[in-house]
Amino acid sequence: WSPKLAVDENTWAQVGVLGQFQFEAKQDNAGTNGDQWSNGAFVRRFRLLMQGSVHKNVQFLFDTDIPNAGKSADFGQPAPQEKLILNDAFVDFNLVPALKFEVGRILLPFSYENKQSATALLGLDYNLNAIKIPTFSEPLAAWRDNGVEARGLLLNNLIDYRVGVFTGQRDNAINPDDHLRYTGHVMLNLAEAQPGWFYSNSNFGKQTIRSLGVGFDMQDDATPVYTTDTSVSPSVTTLASRQDYRAWEVDGQLEQPLGNGQAISASAAWFDWEHAAGDFSGNTAFAQAGYLVTPHWQPVLRWEHQDPDAGRKLDTYHLGMNYLIKGHNANLKVDYALHDRIGADGEEKDAFRLQAQFLY
Amino acid sequence: WSPKLAVDENTWAQVGVLGQFQFEAKQDNAGTNGDQWSNGAFVRRFRLLMQGSVHKNVQFLFDTDIPNAGKSADFGQPAPQEKLILNDAFVDFNLVPALKFEVGRILLPFSYENKQSATALLGLDYNLNAIKIPTFSEPLAAWRDNGVEARGLLLNNLIDYRVGVFTGQRDNAINPDDHLRYTGHVMLNLAEAQPGWFYSNSNFGKQTIRSLGVGFDMQDDATPVYTTDTSVSPSVTTLASRQDYRAWEVDGQLEQPLGNGQAISASAAWFDWEHAAGDFSGNTAFAQAGYLVTPHWQPVLRWEHQDPDAGRKLDTYHLGMNYLIKGHNANLKVDYALHDRIGADGEEKDAFRLQAQFLY
Amino acid sequence: WSPKLAVDENTWAQVGVLGQFQFEAKQDNAGTNGDQWSNGAFVRRFRLLMQGSVHKNVQFLFDTDIPNAGKSADFGQPAPQEKLILNDAFVDFNLVPALKFEVGRILLPFSYENKQSATALLGLDYNLNAIKIPTFSEPLAAWRDNGVEARGLLLNNLIDYRVGVFTGQRDNAINPDDHLRYTGHVMLNLAEAQPGWFYSNSNFGKQTIRSLGVGFDMQDDATPVYTTDTSVSPSVTTLASRQDYRAWEVDGQLEQPLGNGQAISASAAWFDWEHAAGDFSGNTAFAQAGYLVTPHWQPVLRWEHQDPDAGRKLDTYHLGMNYLIKGHNANLKVDYALHDRIGADGEEKDAFRLQAQFLY
Repeated sequence: WSPKLAVDENTWAQVGVLGQFQFEAKQDNAGTNGDQWSNGAFVRRFRLLMQGSVHKNVQFLFDTDIPNAGKSADFGQPAPQEKLILNDAFVDFNLVPALKFEVGRILLPFSYENKQSATALLGLDYNLNAIKIPTFSEPLAAWRDNGVEARGLLLNNLIDYRVGVFTGQRDNAINPDDHLRYTGHVMLNLAEAQPGWFYSNSNFGKQTIRSLGVGFDMQDDATPVYTTDTSVSPSVTTLASRQDYRAWEVDGQLEQPLGNGQAISASAAWFDWEHAAGDFSGNTAFAQAGYLVTPHWQPVLRWEHQDPDAGRKLDTYHLGMNYLIKGHNANLKVDYALHDRIGADGEEKDAFRLQAQFLY
Repeated sequence: WSPKLAVDENTWAQVGVLGQFQFEAKQDNAGTNGDQWSNGAFVRRFRLLMQGSVHKNVQFLFDTDIPNAGKSADFGQPAPQEKLILNDAFVDFNLVPALKFEVGRILLPFSYENKQSATALLGLDYNLNAIKIPTFSEPLAAWRDNGVEARGLLLNNLIDYRVGVFTGQRDNAINPDDHLRYTGHVMLNLAEAQPGWFYSNSNFGKQTIRSLGVGFDMQDDATPVYTTDTSVSPSVTTLASRQDYRAWEVDGQLEQPLGNGQAISASAAWFDWEHAAGDFSGNTAFAQAGYLVTPHWQPVLRWEHQDPDAGRKLDTYHLGMNYLIKGHNANLKVDYALHDRIGADGEEKDAFRLQAQFLY
Repeated sequence: WSPKLAVDENTWAQVGVLGQFQFEAKQDNAGTNGDQWSNGAFVRRFRLLMQGSVHKNVQFLFDTDIPNAGKSADFGQPAPQEKLILNDAFVDFNLVPALKFEVGRILLPFSYENKQSATALLGLDYNLNAIKIPTFSEPLAAWRDNGVEARGLLLNNLIDYRVGVFTGQRDNAINPDDHLRYTGHVMLNLAEAQPGWFYSNSNFGKQTIRSLGVGFDMQDDATPVYTTDTSVSPSVTTLASRQDYRAWEVDGQLEQPLGNGQAISASAAWFDWEHAAGDFSGNTAFAQAGYLVTPHWQPVLRWEHQDPDAGRKLDTYHLGMNYLIKGHNANLKVDYALHDRIGADGEEKDAFRLQAQFLY
């Protein structure tokens, strides 16, 4: 963040920038002989951020993004177009610590993992395989929706609650009765609290965090089920039914300074999904741990788990190393993902990623 | 606006942000039983603004926007995509008070209402039903066009004139001879003048304004008329003819401080359109008044009128209340629109809207 | 650029804005009688820029753009859509003067001409007819690609080298083996060196530059060749073969102060292309010279040359005049292009352009 551009004590703004540039090599049966890995460089995230205040009780934040700009598709898929989007955008009516209202486009308050800032991740990226939150607004502004969230800290910071009402599925054909979406997360803080908009994932020993949370996300008539009649030519796809989306989860987070400048960051979560993104039903989970050995070196291990009701289980193991030039402000991260995803041929595929990040 | 980021006296810039978040409930025969209202939350406007100066006679302004991001369509219509756009973008060659040139993408100088800033509206929104200005450049940058505008104040600020030449219809098939668009507005200031780029609509008693204006907007071959031949399958739509677009209007504006912190804001306009946006021909009008009762409460009444040459008349009545946390910088507005629009079934439909605004 | 928004000596950012608004009249057999010129005003470039530093060795730059917003197509072509894009976006690991790494979306280091900043051109625009660099990432972010560039100054600034590896063609069907793109430029500085990200094209006598360069740009399987089978209805277009793209060039640049506030700016380049943008094979060249007569007036002559292996030669002559209100910060440029391009009827067409620029 820049210094405050202040008109007076309660009227100010700050500018920020996040850049993440990635090189990715992925096993995908590419090549004229089908035995190659695909590789390419792209802009993983590029965000112009601004936060500020217009009144002692009214703050705001927004950022734009252009996710995966220039990325190559998996082999066999067409190269995607890129799009500059409004990512976060909200105004926060900050009444008392126990009650604040965020209004606008907001990260859904469903789990600790998805309510973190992308500027301060432990791994090279989120545990994307475990998060199946459907996105109905702008597909590229993943995990965000338009609505209002009430939040606060209760019982001397012991309880952190965040609950909201959102538009969710706004396609008239799928959700004709305009059912709203309800999302919430309640967290027990056994050490320090986090009163800010986003949760921390890797704070280099600056805070001690021991938190346990539980969350839900639901909307009636959110998920379409289509059938395709191939007996006619060309084939005809029709909306066969509407499914109610339901999800709940439990999560835990640990940030533990060890003295000597060393620190442990660890988190885990378990998810249950019904008719989630891409009509996914089943369970997912992840667990991750990072060890800040020196101010510059931080190895990270991550495990992601998918167990769909229909289809194959997938366990992904990430071996990662962060080289922190200057914390989250300038770093290089490398990540080898064993069984990164299931390919078009039904086999587990690995991937290697190298990322340069800067944050102002 | 931020403080000036100044290199020297004549070289500086200021950053600003406008956010408007809306919840809308609209009567539209939604639902599986056709008896529901639709409802949803969306980003009405989200603008990053910058204005500045690069020379004592050369200033600039621009803002981006993403109008109606995440909005639901009326029942039966598909959900719209959202798009981040360049909204205003111009350089102002500020020679003398009687002659300045704005070059770039500009709000058309046609009427007082459409030349106002969206940051400082009296109502929850513009009187949208009355303004049928065609937009040929970027559809989402409504009421703007690319070209040049001359403007100035004459006769000791008595006369405010703004006239411009714009590209307008740039589709070669519709406007093959590349006729240009001509637009202008002349205003008599009976009280204070407004030398800035935009007019004021609700200034909370900070200025006394009594102004009367007349405007025009015209372009030959601007409006296409299509015919659809349904005797073949699939049906074929062809350009049948080109129509010359003509519009003129008269408007009046009143800003009157009443002492005691109270103030009246009122305006009205009458429009005559030929082959305007959506090939609208006919008359429209609006009148509105707001009464600043206390620094925080301001009831607003608005009337909008549409009388097309072909089709149904529509009179819309808005009952609105503004809760001004801090003027235009932070406020909540509520608006009930009786006969908001004509629905797909030909009946008048109501709408309820609630909006949170912040402006930095 | 704004003043530095500085947190500390090595952590700061600066904001900038570039606006270029153009009126263009072009000979294109427009009109109902086929004897008209097309004319229109549009936004040539509009960039929000930010550069900064997050560590003494880590700097960044980005800008957005919306090229040719509101421009009319040539007669017979549909009006283009406009799109806000991420233009440049990179982080610079600035190790020593002899070795720096730019990572992200970068102007390809192929030739002096294409590695210049659009903020500081000598002519009204680049010598666009001569530059056939294929753009595979975002088409509107022309001449840029995603990857990494190493650069530095060697032998006491005598040698300026820039070499990079980029993603290039990322369409799996065209480049199934994911060959990477290799691009480089080596330059001999016979006067002052240019250690910055971009080269200078017209510096009003502030530097003396005498440089000679040579560059290359290449990628295997970059260029698709399609065939269309019209014996079936509707006709079927298939990928017939993949071509390796190869290009090389030589260039020279002269910036010479003459005393008395006068200065000469001149440059020239010769290009050899195989299977470049639009499968162009052949040679191109350009030469240009400008003479700063007074601080405000600068006539410019430009010659562009195209000699495709297949198709017609084209020699374009630009007669230009710059009126510099304040150098690159505020100016008006006029340019008459004799034989601007070859029209749909195979004839050479002229064009007249007038541009207002501001730069903060």
